[in-house]
Amino acid sequence: MSISTQPYKGARDFYPEDKGLQKYIFTTMRKVVERFGYEEYDAPILEPTDLYLEKGNQEIIEQQTYTFTDRGERSVTLRTEMTPSIARMVAGRRQELAYPLRWYSIPQCWRYERTQRGRGREFYQLNVDLFGEAGISAEHEMLTLIRDLLGAYGATDDMYTIRINSRAFMDWVFTEHFELQKQVQADLFRLIDRKHKLDTKKFDEQLSELLQEANNPQAAVSTITELLQTDSLDSIPELLREHDSLHALRELINLATSSNIQNLVFDPTITRGFDYYNDIVFEVFDTDQDNNRSMFGGGRYDNLLESFGADPIPTIGFGMGDMTLINFLEIHNLLPNIQPETLVYLVVYGDVYSQAIAVAEDLRTSGVNVAVDATGRKMDKMIKAADKKQIPYILVIGEREITEARFTLKRLEDGEEVQYSKEELVTALLS
Amino acid sequence: MSISTQPYKGARDFYPEDKGLQKYIFTTMRKVVERFGYEEYDAPILEPTDLYLEKGNQEIIEQQTYTFTDRGERSVTLRTEMTPSIARMVAGRRQELAYPLRWYSIPQCWRYERTQRGRGREFYQLNVDLFGEAGISAEHEMLTLIRDLLGAYGATDDMYTIRINSRAFMDWVFTEHFELQKQVQADLFRLIDRKHKLDTKKFDEQLSELLQEANNPQAAVSTITELLQTDSLDSIPELLREHDSLHALRELINLATSSNIQNLVFDPTITRGFDYYNDIVFEVFDTDQDNNRSMFGGGRYDNLLESFGADPIPTIGFGMGDMTLINFLEIHNLLPNIQPETLVYLVVYGDVYSQAIAVAEDLRTSGVNVAVDATGRKMDKMIKAADKKQIPYILVIGEREITEARFTLKRLEDGEEVQYSKEELVTALLS
Repeated sequence: MSISTQPYKGARDFYPEDKGLQKYIFTTMRKVVERFGYEEYDAPILEPTDLYLEKGNQEIIEQQTYTFTDRGERSVTLRTEMTPSIARMVAGRRQELAYPLRWYSIPQCWRYERTQRGRGREFYQLNVDLFGEAGISAEHEMLTLIRDLLGAYGATDDMYTIRINSRAFMDWVFTEHFELQKQVQADLFRLIDRKHKLDTKKFDEQLSELLQEANNPQAAVSTITELLQTDSLDSIPELLREHDSLHALRELINLATSSNIQNLVFDPTITRGFDYYNDIVFEVFDTDQDNNRSMFGGGRYDNLLESFGADPIPTIGFGMGDMTLINFLEIHNLLPNIQPETLVYLVVYGDVYSQAIAVAEDLRTSGVNVAVDATGRKMDKMIKAADKKQIPYILVIGEREITEARFTLKRLEDGEEVQYSKEELVTALLS
Repeated sequence: MSISTQPYKGARDFYPEDKGLQKYIFTTMRKVVERFGYEEYDAPILEPTDLYLEKGNQEIIEQQTYTFTDRGERSVTLRTEMTPSIARMVAGRRQELAYPLRWYSIPQCWRYERTQRGRGREFYQLNVDLFGEAGISAEHEMLTLIRDLLGAYGATDDMYTIRINSRAFMDWVFTEHFELQKQVQADLFRLIDRKHKLDTKKFDEQLSELLQEANNPQAAVSTITELLQTDSLDSIPELLREHDSLHALRELINLATSSNIQNLVFDPTITRGFDYYNDIVFEVFDTDQDNNRSMFGGGRYDNLLESFGADPIPTIGFGMGDMTLINFLEIHNLLPNIQPETLVYLVVYGDVYSQAIAVAEDLRTSGVNVAVDATGRKMDKMIKAADKKQIPYILVIGEREITEARFTLKRLEDGEEVQYSKEELVTALLS
């Protein structure tokens, strides 16, 4: 009985054409975030399970992790997100690192989820974090970086909206105005985070139920329902307008406008699921009617190092998954045509391998990527292989080419053939 | 109680300086193998356990895998090596792919081993495979590729030796001459593979014991002992000299010599551990006295697709681990000084954030990597941070610089300061 050639369910094989797209996606990420001074880091894909126990989303931990016991009786978990790992690493060198610290990574993460379109059990996620900058300039940097990042793939402002809110503001509304307990608040944040996925009636019911814990349930329901329908700072219910966090939001919107970011809107339904966010949060939405959903997001989590016993550092960050990004680029027709890295397919014709390979070595030394076909098959088979691989040039080397020291380069695109000396060949290929 | 900041035992955190080295290592790998026409692929780090059950090293499977059951009752294993995955992927598209197929990958692999210097529980391994080339040109390509690869890190021929042998030859000796059963042969290959790790007496004893199964145990012991001490094709015991596989080895050595590879030697103790090798095998040894050991190796495994029920394809490949490579580069003083990707540290001085950031945006658009310090800390603190990060240039922007539109660029290396207009600044930084 033979073994299956399928990969593990929910995970992807990357054949060269898939890997080529991934390389384009990742290279672009690296280029843009490095423009802003971010340095790449990485952590093991296996982490002690403890790391995920305290922080984060309970649902993910209990139902969606790959957790098991190693041969030394330690409980380990395949990472589900990068934030706990970066927190661990920064906490470990809290005193030695130079702030502001700009770190990024493109880790693979695993979650045991029901598999569906655009959501597998593994995904890659660009993680961008800035430590040690308490001011609004940090938020502003995240927004410009996101603009430049999506822009680098060809996206324009009209293709997406950045929605922002302030957890500090929401906290203040819940705590000061309506005297709600921390646990109810956490439940509220998670409910509001799922608002777009629930039908209105169900959402209203659950909201109303949670708000029964408020000092004045009736006022809480009407005020918060009104708040959640707001789409600008100016339309926030009047009795909620006086808080520092709103000034920070306003300042950020002004700064963004001066940086020509026009697609930023206030949206009080943006809360992010995780408990660790404590101030400004943001989410990027696709504006396309067929994909009108949150693509990715982030925010401020100033208490990230708490569980390691390290002093707090102001921190802001976001994570962007590869599958949602590719989905976005597909919908907006922004996926490029990926070219092979190989430029020349050198066909060895007849018994001239060592002479032909000497030409290949010269070309490589000059920086040309050359694949050699020394299979000795029929010429049409060899040409067909080059064609299938979409390699731009074919170079057939046989006895005549070696004797005359003249080489014919055939361009796949239009079949054009030009004869060159070895030196001219290099020049032609590198131009 | 706080959570530990240590990574999982035997696994590495990559702080930016470590990641910088890894990026150099990986970028160099990619550059060289792509010169030979290899295309990158990847497979999930989790594979169905079945994939590892049939082929490979029994010891690794039984004692060294990270194997567990997922929430859907499937047995899965963190990959221990890439070969089973590539075999699975090629078998899955056996008919559609264009040969010769050149594929490479730099996967992370996991093995539950006793942790020691140069050996952790996770490692990265460059895997290079060539499918569909039956001739000796495939072996020759592997050798020149290895030469170019190590050469790209600055290694010269005297720093390492490539030892080759032929499993087909050894097979013939064991089967035809001494009529040994397959299982005894497999045990012999594994014993010989460990020869360098065992003391002579113990090795001789075990060899003699296995050879009791031969048709003529006494002759087998003396002939094979003599063979294992051979260091060139010409000194092979006379009665073993007539086999095609020796002609192939000789042809390979001649081809290598014509490609100026002088550090290739015949070594009949090279067998590689795995059962799947069936012809020429090779291993690269460090020549340094303090590290005189096998660094990596590979060979031909033409029956790799067998367990998937796919027709065989001639295949050759090798795998090179990152830790042994780094160890080699360290010993030979070849590790480079890794520079940060960030070129400019822009210090915002006073209340000019939006004007200063406009300069940063201009620089970035021109291709300059700029990190902004808008923390408003004391000047010496901000300069010290730039210094610690080893960023080559500091650009302080305050009210005066904005008003006069003149910017002073300070070079970290020697403290030299030069004043520029904004346009000159870009030119100076990109030159």
